[in-house]
Amino acid sequence: MNSITTVQPDPILLTPGPLTTSLRTRQAMMVDWGSWDDKFNELTASLCYQLLDIVNGTNSHRCVPLQGSGTFAVEAAIGTLVPRNGKVLVLINGAYGKRLAKICEVLGRSYSTFETAEDEPTTAADVDRLLAADPAITHVALIHCETSTGILNPLEEIAKVIAGHGKRLIIDAMSSFGALPIDAQTVPFDALIAASGKCLEGVPGMGFVFARNESLAAAAGNSHSLAMDLHDQYTYMAKTGQWRFTPPTHVVAALHEALLQYNLEGGLPARLKRYAKNCQTLLDEMAKLGLRSFLPESIQAPIIVTFHAPRDPRYQFRGFYERVKAKGFILYPGKLTQVETFRVGCIGHVNDSGMRAAVAAIAEVLEEMEVVEI
Amino acid sequence: MNSITTVQPDPILLTPGPLTTSLRTRQAMMVDWGSWDDKFNELTASLCYQLLDIVNGTNSHRCVPLQGSGTFAVEAAIGTLVPRNGKVLVLINGAYGKRLAKICEVLGRSYSTFETAEDEPTTAADVDRLLAADPAITHVALIHCETSTGILNPLEEIAKVIAGHGKRLIIDAMSSFGALPIDAQTVPFDALIAASGKCLEGVPGMGFVFARNESLAAAAGNSHSLAMDLHDQYTYMAKTGQWRFTPPTHVVAALHEALLQYNLEGGLPARLKRYAKNCQTLLDEMAKLGLRSFLPESIQAPIIVTFHAPRDPRYQFRGFYERVKAKGFILYPGKLTQVETFRVGCIGHVNDSGMRAAVAAIAEVLEEMEVVEI
Ligand SMILES: Cc1ncc(COP(=O)(O)O)c(C=O)c1O
Ligand SMILES: Cc1ncc(COP(=O)(O)O)c(C=O)c1O
Repeated sequence: MNSITTVQPDPILLTPGPLTTSLRTRQAMMVDWGSWDDKFNELTASLCYQLLDIVNGTNSHRCVPLQGSGTFAVEAAIGTLVPRNGKVLVLINGAYGKRLAKICEVLGRSYSTFETAEDEPTTAADVDRLLAADPAITHVALIHCETSTGILNPLEEIAKVIAGHGKRLIIDAMSSFGALPIDAQTVPFDALIAASGKCLEGVPGMGFVFARNESLAAAAGNSHSLAMDLHDQYTYMAKTGQWRFTPPTHVVAALHEALLQYNLEGGLPARLKRYAKNCQTLLDEMAKLGLRSFLPESIQAPIIVTFHAPRDPRYQFRGFYERVKAKGFILYPGKLTQVETFRVGCIGHVNDSGMRAAVAAIAEVLEEMEVVEI
Repeated sequence: MNSITTVQPDPILLTPGPLTTSLRTRQAMMVDWGSWDDKFNELTASLCYQLLDIVNGTNSHRCVPLQGSGTFAVEAAIGTLVPRNGKVLVLINGAYGKRLAKICEVLGRSYSTFETAEDEPTTAADVDRLLAADPAITHVALIHCETSTGILNPLEEIAKVIAGHGKRLIIDAMSSFGALPIDAQTVPFDALIAASGKCLEGVPGMGFVFARNESLAAAAGNSHSLAMDLHDQYTYMAKTGQWRFTPPTHVVAALHEALLQYNLEGGLPARLKRYAKNCQTLLDEMAKLGLRSFLPESIQAPIIVTFHAPRDPRYQFRGFYERVKAKGFILYPGKLTQVETFRVGCIGHVNDSGMRAAVAAIAEVLEEMEVVEI
C-alpha cells in the first residue's frame, strides 16, 4: 500500500526520480522539525556523515548539502569550485551533459565540449588526447550515468587520466550515487554531485556535493551566487551545525530515514544487486514482448532503460503512458531526438516482482491498443 | 497530536519558519507524485493560480515557483528582474535587508543602501529623497516584515513614492505574505517574493515570485544563474506545465493542501485575525510576567515578537530554550547585536490558547531558573 490518504494504491514510479519511496521514509515527514534545534542539527550531521561514508570520502572530502533540485547542486559545484579564470572540458553524450555546458555558459566560465553519440561512452583515450591538446583546461566535468539514455561512462579510467594530467574532475553522479560503487580513494575527484530523490530513495528537494577538502577551502569568493555558494554553506554549517538558509526539514528527515533503510538493506552492494536484478528482469521480460533496448547491455547502467518505441502506427506514447498508469505504473518519455523511445526506471522502492508486474501491464496495454508490429 | 510516529506530541514551533503545520498538510506528503504526470502538473497550476489570487495579481503578474529556500527565490528575483546595468536601492532595518544587499554584491549588480535602526521603519519620505538624489537607481528592494525583529515597513506608501518616480519595486514579503494584505492593483511592484513554509503554513522547500508580466517578459538573459533564471523557469512551465528541473513534489503537494485549508479557514482575513489574536495574547500574557517587547505596538507585525531578555544573571538563552522546549514549545533566539533578546513567533498552525500555554510554560521555566529580575 503506497498511501494512507487514498484507497487506490498509488502507481509505482518507474522514472529517474522522483521515484517510489517506502512508507517508512514518507512517515518521517510527519514531524515538523525546528531548523534551529539541536536534534535537527544532529540529523543533518548524521546525514552528511553517512553520505560521505558511502563514497569512502570521510577523510578527503566534505559533504555540503544544498536546498533545491539536483541541478542546483551541479551549478553550485561548478560555480564554487571552478575559479573564475578556470576552463572546463565538458564531456557530453546526452541531455545532462549538455546542461553542464549550459551552466558553464551562463556562469561565464570558459569551457569546451566533447560530444559523442548518445549510445557511445566517452573513453579515457578521448580525454587523454583532449587534455594533451589544450593545457588551458583546469577541470573536466562528466556525467557518470547519463540518465537521458541510461548509458554508463567509464568513470574510473577517465578519472585516472585526468589525475595523470594534474587536472580536476567534477562528477555528476545524480542517478548513480548510492547504487554504483565510487571510491573517493581510488577515483580522484574534486566534486561529486547527487541528490536526495534518486538511488538513496529519499524524496526530492535537496542535493549534496562531496568537495575535496583543499579545493573547498580554496574556493572562497569564487561563487557567482550567494545561495549556491558551497564554501559559504559549508563554513556556516561547520561553525553552527545549521544550514545557512531554511533547510527543507521534511526532505532532510526523509533522506535520513531512507539512509537508515539503505544500511539495513545492506548498503551499496545490496542496493546495486536489487537494481541490477530489476534491470535484468526488465530487459528479459521486455525482450519476450519483442521490445528492444536502445543500448547494448555492456554500456547499460542498471538505473534506467531506454526502449525503442513500437513501430506500429497504433502506438503513441501519450495513450500508452495513460493506460500503463491506469494499471499502476508510471513510465517516462524518451529523451532522444533522432529515435522514438520511451524509458523505464529500475530504481526506487521496487523489486523484480514489481518489474515483472510492470512488463505484464505493458503487454496488456499493447494488446489493448492493438499494437502488433513491435 | 502532532505526529503519528512518536508517542510524545512534538513541540509547537514558535519560530519564523519552519513552523507547525496541520496533520492534514503533512499527510499530503504520503503520496509519491511523478513530476511528469498530468495530475502533478494540475497541482502546480492550481497552486500558482491560488497564490496569485491572494495578491490579486492574476492579470498583472505571473507566479513563478522555485525550488529551494526563500533566499533562493529572492536571489532569483534580483538576478532575473534587475538588468545587469540596473542599480538597486536596498532599504535596510535588519538582517534580511542586509542579505538583499549581499545578494546585489555577489551578483555584481550596482546598489546603494539606506539603513535605519532596527526599531525604525523606513519611511516614504526617505525613499522620496533618496530617489530624487540618485537618478541612476532603477529598482528599490524592501523587506515588508523584517523578521529579525518583527518590524513592519510601510509598504503601501513606499510603493506609491517609487511608482511616482517611475522606478520598480522588489518586495521580500517572505514572512508577511498570506497574512498581511497586499494588493497588486494598488501596491505597484515588479516582484514580490515569499515561500511555502511561512504564513501559508506549508512545509519549507520552495519559494515563489510574483513577477510583473512585462518585466518578466523582458528579462531573458539577465540571470547570472541557470537554476535561478525565473524567465527560463516560467517559459518552460508555460510551455509544458512542468517544472524545469525536478520539483520538490512532496513540498508542492503539502503547500497545495495547506492552501485548501487556508481558503477553508476564510483566506487572508481569517489568517490575519488568528495571527493578530496570537500576537495580542502573547504580548498581553508576557507583559503580565514583566517581559517587554522590543518594538512599540504601532510598528509590530503580528508575525514574530522580539522580547528583551530578562536582566537576571541566572537567565541565559540556551537553558531557557531547552526548558521551554521540554514543556512543548520551541522559541527562537534574538538576532540583535546591541540588545539581548529572544523571539516568539505568532505564525503556524497554532491559536491563542496555544500562545497562552506557551507563556504559561515560559512563566514556569523562569520560576524554575529562579529568574526574578526581569
Ligand atoms: C545525471 C543527472 N544530472 C542532473 C539531473 C538533474 O537533477 P534535477 O532534475 O533534480 O535538477 C538529473 C535528473 O534526473 C540527472 O539524472
Ligand atoms: C523577511 C525574510 N526574508 C528572507 C528570508 C529567508 O528565507 P529562507 O531562510 O527560507 O532562505 C526569511 C526567513 O525567515 C525572512 O523572514
